[in-house]
Amino acid sequence: MTTAGTIHGLGLGPGDPDLMSVRADRLLRNARHVAYFRKAGKPGQARRIVDGILPESTVEFPMEYPVTTEIHFSDPRYNAVLSDFYADCTTHLRALAEGGEDVVVLCEGDPFFYGSFMHLYTRLKDHVPVQVVPAITGMSAAWTATGMPVTWGCDVLSVLMGTLPEDDLADHMARADALVVMKIGRNMDKIRGALRKAGRYDDAWLVEYASMEGQTVSRLADAEGRVTPYFSIIVVHGQGRRP
Amino acid sequence: MTTAGTIHGLGLGPGDPDLMSVRADRLLRNARHVAYFRKAGKPGQARRIVDGILPESTVEFPMEYPVTTEIHFSDPRYNAVLSDFYADCTTHLRALAEGGEDVVVLCEGDPFFYGSFMHLYTRLKDHVPVQVVPAITGMSAAWTATGMPVTWGCDVLSVLMGTLPEDDLADHMARADALVVMKIGRNMDKIRGALRKAGRYDDAWLVEYASMEGQTVSRLADAEGRVTPYFSIIVVHGQGRRP
Repeated sequence: MTTAGTIHGLGLGPGDPDLMSVRADRLLRNARHVAYFRKAGKPGQARRIVDGILPESTVEFPMEYPVTTEIHFSDPRYNAVLSDFYADCTTHLRALAEGGEDVVVLCEGDPFFYGSFMHLYTRLKDHVPVQVVPAITGMSAAWTATGMPVTWGCDVLSVLMGTLPEDDLADHMARADALVVMKIGRNMDKIRGALRKAGRYDDAWLVEYASMEGQTVSRLADAEGRVTPYFSIIVVHGQGRRP
Repeated sequence: MTTAGTIHGLGLGPGDPDLMSVRADRLLRNARHVAYFRKAGKPGQARRIVDGILPESTVEFPMEYPVTTEIHFSDPRYNAVLSDFYADCTTHLRALAEGGEDVVVLCEGDPFFYGSFMHLYTRLKDHVPVQVVPAITGMSAAWTATGMPVTWGCDVLSVLMGTLPEDDLADHMARADALVVMKIGRNMDKIRGALRKAGRYDDAWLVEYASMEGQTVSRLADAEGRVTPYFSIIVVHGQGRRP
């Protein structure tokens, strides 16, 4: 009987290949099979990060999202379509592992932190060996880019998704010391409104393309009217105790 | 005139050297000067992580804390003593950089996330070049160790320090979907009380020595009476939307 291969949920970090872990770098340089999510017709951000690192001989399995924003996530069809898609991906990955092959699944950021890999993980983990390699989060790269520490002493940090309702956002923004807001894109106006309600707007920083080519850092108030990519990150720094 | 050297605030990640970034690994293997915090008379956790990576020729500058827990941080003497200490460290590091030397300052975890390096950073950054290398946080290693994703969909994650008052802790614990609690040690009873008040106790996991030798993962409820190191981490996983 063949010994099952391992599926590695490999965190790539924020985007700069130099910020991948030593373990991630080693696994990639020896990868026989890689899989990664991408939008149909796009090369895929995760795949782009490992350009020049993967061996030529690596067999690639792009997993193309059937929907991204065409169906709203509150629509029951959204869940049904995605669920079928994840099941299909899982079938392929599981067959590879059961055939004795190791597979590296490329994950932007840290796999267990709002990552897409989690949807494969929950479907695979009871059947074949799965190992997760943690990584530097996009938010770490973002606060590092601002040149200011994000949390001091007893500061409370809250991480919020821009997809939340404005009042929920404002409520959390008012209670935490330090803030990170992700999933911005088309939620920007709502996020600005919530920050204003919470009295945090003037202290908010916007980081686009953290650690990547084209990185920008600006006060959110100075970026009025700018169209911002979905994976931009807003940071409000804590002001806790410091000797 | 000598060109100033650069001071690198180098995030080492959660403890496993294999989880350092490629950049951190390279900077360490070429380091002429390293500095690191430690308790008096101890080798220092940050220094231990880079054992076998630093060249023999590296000049080491251990920075020994004058106080850790002998004076409570609410006592004004605590701030005064620490402030003098950081000023002394800064003087030495600045002199090295002004003499043209690069210096690597070892930082456990991610430097800008509750890190001690921040106290040097604010005192150095206007005088000599300082570069910060982000890293995998201890909390990423902790939630990865639990084998369960920490945040899904629109989950709110709050990061809390066990040093906060119990009512504040309980309030935040009740409002967030996913939780991380750090700085545990002698605050454990208070943290347990707050988790119970917030109705989150039964869903809390305790991770000791995340990613290090001796790592343990247990339900907090199953770790009653255990004495836990200060850098243990409690994780409560979010239960957000998942197709």
